[in-house]
Amino acid sequence: MHAAIAIKERIATGKVGKALIIGGGFIGLEMAEALTDMWGIETTVVEITSQILPGIISKNMAKMAQDHMEENGVSFFLKERVERLEGENKVTRVFTNKRTIETDLVIVSVGIEPNSELADKAGLKISESGAIVVNKKMQTSDPDIYAGGDVVEVNNLITGKPGYYPLGSMANRQGRIIGTNLAGGNDEFPGAVGSFVVKLFDISVSAVGLSIDTAHKEGFDAVSAMVAQFDRAHFYPEKDLMYLELVVERKTEKVLGIQGIGNKGDGTTGRINAVAAILPYQPTLHEISNLELAYSPPFSSAMDILNALGNTAENLLDEKNRVLDVDEFAELWKQKHDGEVVFLDCRGWGNAKPFVKRYPEKWQSLPQDQLLTRIDEVPKNKRIILICNTGVRSYEAQITLDQQGIRNTANLQGGMACVKKWGMDI
Amino acid sequence: MHAAIAIKERIATGKVGKALIIGGGFIGLEMAEALTDMWGIETTVVEITSQILPGIISKNMAKMAQDHMEENGVSFFLKERVERLEGENKVTRVFTNKRTIETDLVIVSVGIEPNSELADKAGLKISESGAIVVNKKMQTSDPDIYAGGDVVEVNNLITGKPGYYPLGSMANRQGRIIGTNLAGGNDEFPGAVGSFVVKLFDISVSAVGLSIDTAHKEGFDAVSAMVAQFDRAHFYPEKDLMYLELVVERKTEKVLGIQGIGNKGDGTTGRINAVAAILPYQPTLHEISNLELAYSPPFSSAMDILNALGNTAENLLDEKNRVLDVDEFAELWKQKHDGEVVFLDCRGWGNAKPFVKRYPEKWQSLPQDQLLTRIDEVPKNKRIILICNTGVRSYEAQITLDQQGIRNTANLQGGMACVKKWGMDI
Repeated sequence: MHAAIAIKERIATGKVGKALIIGGGFIGLEMAEALTDMWGIETTVVEITSQILPGIISKNMAKMAQDHMEENGVSFFLKERVERLEGENKVTRVFTNKRTIETDLVIVSVGIEPNSELADKAGLKISESGAIVVNKKMQTSDPDIYAGGDVVEVNNLITGKPGYYPLGSMANRQGRIIGTNLAGGNDEFPGAVGSFVVKLFDISVSAVGLSIDTAHKEGFDAVSAMVAQFDRAHFYPEKDLMYLELVVERKTEKVLGIQGIGNKGDGTTGRINAVAAILPYQPTLHEISNLELAYSPPFSSAMDILNALGNTAENLLDEKNRVLDVDEFAELWKQKHDGEVVFLDCRGWGNAKPFVKRYPEKWQSLPQDQLLTRIDEVPKNKRIILICNTGVRSYEAQITLDQQGIRNTANLQGGMACVKKWGMDI
Repeated sequence: MHAAIAIKERIATGKVGKALIIGGGFIGLEMAEALTDMWGIETTVVEITSQILPGIISKNMAKMAQDHMEENGVSFFLKERVERLEGENKVTRVFTNKRTIETDLVIVSVGIEPNSELADKAGLKISESGAIVVNKKMQTSDPDIYAGGDVVEVNNLITGKPGYYPLGSMANRQGRIIGTNLAGGNDEFPGAVGSFVVKLFDISVSAVGLSIDTAHKEGFDAVSAMVAQFDRAHFYPEKDLMYLELVVERKTEKVLGIQGIGNKGDGTTGRINAVAAILPYQPTLHEISNLELAYSPPFSSAMDILNALGNTAENLLDEKNRVLDVDEFAELWKQKHDGEVVFLDCRGWGNAKPFVKRYPEKWQSLPQDQLLTRIDEVPKNKRIILICNTGVRSYEAQITLDQQGIRNTANLQGGMACVKKWGMDI
């Protein structure tokens, strides 16, 4: 709190024109939003890994969030390490391994460490990561001493390993468990699934469980499915596209995690929370496809995006839906194609036209509902990237082409909506 | 659709100044909103039972929703039966068992019946309620014929009995199951928990599972707990009170249902959906108290309202929290008290003052944090109704008084926020 007051005082007295934030985790991003949006400060975030929110959301989701923040005036230097801070009385220059940045303020937000010194001195059991070890009753290694909140680690219900979750919500719930036990009751903290949400300007980013990268690191044979869909009925006047990514273990179809980006309302977090609620029960895709979310056009589609995500992941595991992720699309787009790849636009001519005009050598229009009657126009001998607005019609096109024996196709996950949100302009 | 077009045409040509809606279910209420809000029509709803949304939400929640609609210009006649419609070419007069209502338009929305005539003639098994009977694969009594949507009944996962859920979302999910099975796959529809949401002007009303009345009708020994709390951190600028009611089986602590009222955003429905997601797993209160919803101040409190609701219900079952519902409060308020009841206001003096001035004979101020030092002022020999803004401080006061041996207290559930939302002005 002392640091927060000091920061605010320095800003309020007009001493900060430029700020530098070290670390693109959620504290760093929230600070970047506050400095830019509330105070109009030219803010730069330096992050050592190749994405913001590393370990929490996939690189494609992270790119979408980063693009939104850039549009709102925040600058990012990724894969860059801060090596030295310089200045008299206060830091004025920051040296990374790539550049020197002039700044009026530096905020270090590179992670949280449990403050377990007292517990350690008292002889309580401390984990390798420095957190106090507790059992389900929140008892430390001394059964007369309880601990909770930012100082303990608890069981991750997906990996089965200890995890560290320094969140006020955890502390509050653990506090009640401890209170009950201290008062002679018998209550247990079940463990954590790692739910998370952050507001960044006009969007919210939320997640629970494992991201695709974390799942791979944890040794899961996992895949992820991405869906872009309206957050409510397509005919309802106030609606926004929402982007959800589901991480699933291939063999068991067990749900490992979900991440979402949507507007700053509660719709995205609501979907993440529905999955967070069932994650302790180890649901499979079938449970996601059949979640009975309350339906009415002002709140959801008849086939809610969460159900559609479950269906899409099922199709993916069945290999009916063979996909190209947006970063793979961007990579492919940059490469030179000597006519061996064609981007087949399955939308109506009006949507496809500007792309066909601009890229006649590789972009072709063939609306999904005309595929069968115009099947001769399909470039059978090329690699075909199927494209539509959100990935639904291109998936239907893939099914139709499969039935015609044309299987060298890939469906762009999340469609052009995803490409645009990702910050790619073609 | 023909009826909808006819209604719109008649309204658009200026022929409708007054409308009457028969039935206060969700179609009736959505029509009342549309007629009033979009077209400025003087609209009246006649409902045969004693509340709107009967069987879906509790009478107190229904009263809150009704009060909001009344504030927006809709009139209601409850406990009233329409007996006759009269007019030439079109209905102009409606006779109920209590009055005659002049009107330019009548909309009948008294429930939906499955259109199972064809199936019946074809010899398929039809239930007592007239719906087609299907198994989990969505097969009718003829295994080569499948059925889904508004024409079938499916298993209610809470009561274990068949239920009828004519919703587009059900139809969509069942459609996929049927498609999979027709194509040689093997998929099952798990049954329904009965989730529901409706937008009414500026609020949303959502529910899943059983309301307290339905739970009693189904033979459950059930209680309900009501919580009023901000939908996000109390210090976040944009926030609203949310009202949730949880229905629990007393002995087993099994969750039977939840209902909510909040603003028209997605926050309330998000909480209902989190419970809808776990209801098939037959959760107990412990699961509600420990739900790990994504936390960040723009989206929730550190102790989210849903966790607080679980805690409140636990306290209620433990008889630590002995409550008075808002309708019981209203009833008690109307009665003459010869000094045997006192309303003890546990808020600060500023909040209590206007009530003490107006009702000095029965309203007393005693802030919760001064209870112990001013314990002599507690009117021990009277029935004490403990009051605060949302029911939290009054609960704490109840605990404190219990410890002092003063147990003739009742805590007003949801506090003055609930009284106001309910439409009571004292």
